Amino acid sequence: MSSSTAKKLRPQSRHPDEYAHTLSLAETGQPVDRDPHSYERWLITKLLRMSGSPPIAFRLWNDDVVTPDTGYPKYTVSVKDPKALFSLVTNPNLAFGDLYSAGRLEVDNDLPALMADLYRSIHRAREDWPKWLEALWRNHPPRSTSLEDARDNIHHHYDLGNNFYRLWLDRAEMQYTCAYYERPDLTLEQAQLAKLEHVCRKLRLRPGQTVVEAGCGWGGLARYMARHHGVRVMAYNISREQIVYARAEARRQGLEDRIEYIEDDYRNISGQFDAFVSIGMLEHVGKDHYPQLAELIQRCLKPHGLALLHSIGRNRPMLMNAWIEKRIFPGAYPPSIGEFLSICESGHFSVLDVENLRLHYAQTLTHWLERFEQHRVDISAMYDERFTRAWRLYLAGSIAAFDVGSLQLFQVLFTHADNHQLPQSRCDIYQSPAAPEDY
Amino acid sequence: MSSSTAKKLRPQSRHPDEYAHTLSLAETGQPVDRDPHSYERWLITKLLRMSGSPPIAFRLWNDDVVTPDTGYPKYTVSVKDPKALFSLVTNPNLAFGDLYSAGRLEVDNDLPALMADLYRSIHRAREDWPKWLEALWRNHPPRSTSLEDARDNIHHHYDLGNNFYRLWLDRAEMQYTCAYYERPDLTLEQAQLAKLEHVCRKLRLRPGQTVVEAGCGWGGLARYMARHHGVRVMAYNISREQIVYARAEARRQGLEDRIEYIEDDYRNISGQFDAFVSIGMLEHVGKDHYPQLAELIQRCLKPHGLALLHSIGRNRPMLMNAWIEKRIFPGAYPPSIGEFLSICESGHFSVLDVENLRLHYAQTLTHWLERFEQHRVDISAMYDERFTRAWRLYLAGSIAAFDVGSLQLFQVLFTHADNHQLPQSRCDIYQSPAAPEDY
Repeated sequence: MSSSTAKKLRPQSRHPDEYAHTLSLAETGQPVDRDPHSYERWLITKLLRMSGSPPIAFRLWNDDVVTPDTGYPKYTVSVKDPKALFSLVTNPNLAFGDLYSAGRLEVDNDLPALMADLYRSIHRAREDWPKWLEALWRNHPPRSTSLEDARDNIHHHYDLGNNFYRLWLDRAEMQYTCAYYERPDLTLEQAQLAKLEHVCRKLRLRPGQTVVEAGCGWGGLARYMARHHGVRVMAYNISREQIVYARAEARRQGLEDRIEYIEDDYRNISGQFDAFVSIGMLEHVGKDHYPQLAELIQRCLKPHGLALLHSIGRNRPMLMNAWIEKRIFPGAYPPSIGEFLSICESGHFSVLDVENLRLHYAQTLTHWLERFEQHRVDISAMYDERFTRAWRLYLAGSIAAFDVGSLQLFQVLFTHADNHQLPQSRCDIYQSPAAPEDY
Repeated sequence: MSSSTAKKLRPQSRHPDEYAHTLSLAETGQPVDRDPHSYERWLITKLLRMSGSPPIAFRLWNDDVVTPDTGYPKYTVSVKDPKALFSLVTNPNLAFGDLYSAGRLEVDNDLPALMADLYRSIHRAREDWPKWLEALWRNHPPRSTSLEDARDNIHHHYDLGNNFYRLWLDRAEMQYTCAYYERPDLTLEQAQLAKLEHVCRKLRLRPGQTVVEAGCGWGGLARYMARHHGVRVMAYNISREQIVYARAEARRQGLEDRIEYIEDDYRNISGQFDAFVSIGMLEHVGKDHYPQLAELIQRCLKPHGLALLHSIGRNRPMLMNAWIEKRIFPGAYPPSIGEFLSICESGHFSVLDVENLRLHYAQTLTHWLERFEQHRVDISAMYDERFTRAWRLYLAGSIAAFDVGSLQLFQVLFTHADNHQLPQSRCDIYQSPAAPEDY
């Protein structure tokens, strides 16, 4: 409850100074009136080849075009100045995003599709990379997620302003996590409500039970659980803006006697509960803190309680893209499924159910990006063009990452190792559609 | 197809010499006409205390009874001679089974319940064991599961005679693996057929597809898939007795044009298939061979194929009980869920679905033990009393292990990392009951 330790926050919807600051690395290029040198064309050829010859042509600042070795390019990437070219070749993971945000790199066509083709191509090529290239183009371990640093990390992303997120998240419960398209034709709102219902069913909630939620976002799951499943919820979050919204919304819906929103770190959860749930927080916990999280769940889950963790993950251990980790999600690390389940192995837990919703996240992000684009003028007015371009790339790149399978979405249900009151099967989860008929 | 490499097998249902041989360690005790020494009573007291004071009294050969420190005993274990007592104290993991098999240790009451209470008690006590006790009472790494040794390991257990297994396995498809009790009141036959159907649904089989099965037992799954889902199956097994049965049964059912039973090691699988399935073989593969298995599945699964591994597992890495590994399942090692999924992490795979059927295996084993007891006279006649007692203990101990959660049963569904043709959700698996209405 130590809200006093929270950092002073800027007023909602003002220009995010910290954000602009982090982009300063991508210094603005100057207009260029010279032709490219031959070594610059050679560098682009190398860049394409090292990236596995993706179907991308590069247009240089004098309109010269360099095409890949193989086949016909499907996309054209324009590089506006020689410095942009140099940083792209030496540090593409970080530079691509910074240059795109700064408008020094342009893409002529479908951005998610280009990113997907690029990821696929690099994924294949990487296996043959020489050591020096691996070292040059490497990503870095995520920054600290200690109690103090976690606040900065979360503040950086989640306190950008509720008005911003409201523009493109679902209008049902402001869910900033993967939706559940049990049918492919669901709307974003239906799919987000289906996700909430799906999670409640996996937890086998019964009226009167108690639930603790770690990292509750704008509080939508807590309200859904209280409203539709009659449980009492303690919901933790260190994002001040989200907590303020969550409390107001619970009051508006007359649920304030059943939900307590607590502005505090998940590590300070106390008490015992019938269910532990965390949707989209594990990405920010950091591998080093998994044993601590396991111990916490061990302590606060009743003997017959069920725990559910929902998180972005990987098929195998891999560092986060440098640009995403630096500019978008400081401290983020999506665990491999093995690292994820080490939480269960390090505690005395038994894994009951793992579900992978990877393509559901690609669809969720596609819906988000559509709405984001509809509001791009408003968003540029709220922040600036650089911010809008950075977020467009982040959303498009994420679609691509889930599309090609470089990211996964795991829901893991587990319980104390000696719990005997287990669900007989998963039949009960599927007795009726999870999504409302319309929204 | 190298059936020529298979060992010469003894005729079906004769006394299993190898088996009797492995029990020779537990030499027959002589009748004892002396009272226990005080140090022998002290040893029993120590044994009980080191085992966490389970609710078990020990009756010694002169009818003296030693009770645990705490509470009232629920069971009495009779120790018939001083040598039995000594080997129980020095090497309980191996000796308990050997002494019980030899009749030098008797149990007065519900054997599965006693074993469960004993496991729970030891599990708690183990955390405080001094190093010397951990070393004294340790289990050992499983023996080799190389191509050649695997044949001996499998021969030891699965070639005991089809007539033996027929006495107590289900009459539907001779399934010697965990059944699926989607409702708790299913018969063994219904639950085994439900398991087969459940596996087929998870694999999303469609008529005309091809399936490869690694370790096919008596061939029941292959026949079920061919009969009910119209697929073609190549099914591998190195147990000669099982293959002979499987082929005969496929002919009897008119399925021989859709199933090829191949007497060979899974490592020799070739070709490409729409589905890879293995039910209850991974326990015998050995951790060292997981990367090889991953590579094999990588190679033989079509781009949009689905793979399912069904295996006994653990919540965390742990060695097999010494007696089970030595006398019952040579070479067996049930992996922790993390070790299990290392197969998916080491290949380019994506985990789609993990389900834990732990209590279903306790129920399956309870059904097996009931039928086993009904036929104990026949079984003793086929083999001998020692064999019957060993198998009773193995079945009862396994019920207990699944009951207390020292063993788990995982079904893992996975696919190539870049497969886009994924099931939309798991709804389709649960559209109708998997079990037939009656059997």
